[in-house]
Amino acid sequence: MENRGKLYVIGNGPGDISLTAPKAADVIKNADLICGYKPYVEQITPLINARTEVFTNGMTGEMERVQVALEHCAKGLKVALVCGGDASLYSMASLVFELSEDVDAIEIIPGITSALSASAKLGAPVSDDMVILSMSDLLTPWELIRKRIDAVNIGDFVCAIYNPRSRKRTTQLPYAVEKFMTARGDLPCGWVKNCDREDEQICVTTLRQLDFEQIDMSTVVIVGSTKTFIKSGKMVSPRGYTEKYST
Amino acid sequence: MENRGKLYVIGNGPGDISLTAPKAADVIKNADLICGYKPYVEQITPLINARTEVFTNGMTGEMERVQVALEHCAKGLKVALVCGGDASLYSMASLVFELSEDVDAIEIIPGITSALSASAKLGAPVSDDMVILSMSDLLTPWELIRKRIDAVNIGDFVCAIYNPRSRKRTTQLPYAVEKFMTARGDLPCGWVKNCDREDEQICVTTLRQLDFEQIDMSTVVIVGSTKTFIKSGKMVSPRGYTEKYST
Repeated sequence: MENRGKLYVIGNGPGDISLTAPKAADVIKNADLICGYKPYVEQITPLINARTEVFTNGMTGEMERVQVALEHCAKGLKVALVCGGDASLYSMASLVFELSEDVDAIEIIPGITSALSASAKLGAPVSDDMVILSMSDLLTPWELIRKRIDAVNIGDFVCAIYNPRSRKRTTQLPYAVEKFMTARGDLPCGWVKNCDREDEQICVTTLRQLDFEQIDMSTVVIVGSTKTFIKSGKMVSPRGYTEKYST
Repeated sequence: MENRGKLYVIGNGPGDISLTAPKAADVIKNADLICGYKPYVEQITPLINARTEVFTNGMTGEMERVQVALEHCAKGLKVALVCGGDASLYSMASLVFELSEDVDAIEIIPGITSALSASAKLGAPVSDDMVILSMSDLLTPWELIRKRIDAVNIGDFVCAIYNPRSRKRTTQLPYAVEKFMTARGDLPCGWVKNCDREDEQICVTTLRQLDFEQIDMSTVVIVGSTKTFIKSGKMVSPRGYTEKYST
């Protein structure tokens, strides 16, 4: 079994390599083959050895990417399948397990996900219980997404929204915002576009003032709960310490 | 303003230093003062400079810890307030913003949170929309936690449960499990105790077979959705690629 292959599914973290964990970096440096969506592989270029083979492809290439990784793993190679953010959340890990015939050859290395890197830029909107929700109905039926939007209101959760809007998907985010406002009023919200990349943009606002036109696929939107407030331009969701310990 | 202090709130990531991001490590190495809950500071001992002052305290010391950090920042020092996992999620960032008088002196550095590090150990139970929920009613009223448990069912979310059980809080997790089973049947679930630490324990099971006695404060429980399945001992929540692309 000495030459057995291994497939590492790696979360690169957000756009800046200074947020890629050393464990992920070590695997990338020592891999025989690196597979991934082209922009995510470009993010970690400084970590790639000259002797390492690289296979990249584009969007909707998920199945091929995973199959290439699994085939090379089965041949005995050390393969690093790199993902943006975390390795599992809106990412490749589950597809790897679905398609793999040798589950024990797989290791998942987690990463910092966009909800938390965006939260850090906006202040501290994420502080406790939360919902992470995608507006994309490519893989999840819109009917289920609608139920999940209602669930966010029922639990008065802070909600991080991935894939809020694309050129073709423009109605989902306004629908969610309308539902949030009807149930809970005009909540603080914020967004980060191109988080931790050169052209990063940050906005703290409220649901009523949210400018949908500025939001695209590379944006994470965070909607506060009824407890969230804005302080000096930062979103803050108090955890309750100050209430608990005040006299 | 040259000598202006700065307060970095840092997510260490899970227990293993190989998951602490380089950005966090750099701040820790260059800090004048490190503040934190004792076990989290001990995790990053190899990164601490001999010249750096260290202030640690225990549980329920959150307010004091943040106040010490803010006071030293106001005196012009570079302070690193270290947190386990992420800097915001069930952590100190929001309290820092609440108590700070100079919000612009604060920078949050995100980290890998337990939901994602535990997910990586269990397979890929976390793959898309999810709820992150704490069973602790110390800072959140139990009535609200109950609503959030219902919301998990309504949205058929995968749910990561933090603080599932302590010596004094033994009824909350069984209540949630009962509610999940009533609404959605016997779902796959799993838990990781002491994630990424020496005495790590991993268990993949189902709600019906979950042994509450094995679960403590240092455990993260992940409950699947109705789509989650177990394959060769791993939890897998499919994202829908195989359905979408099969012919």
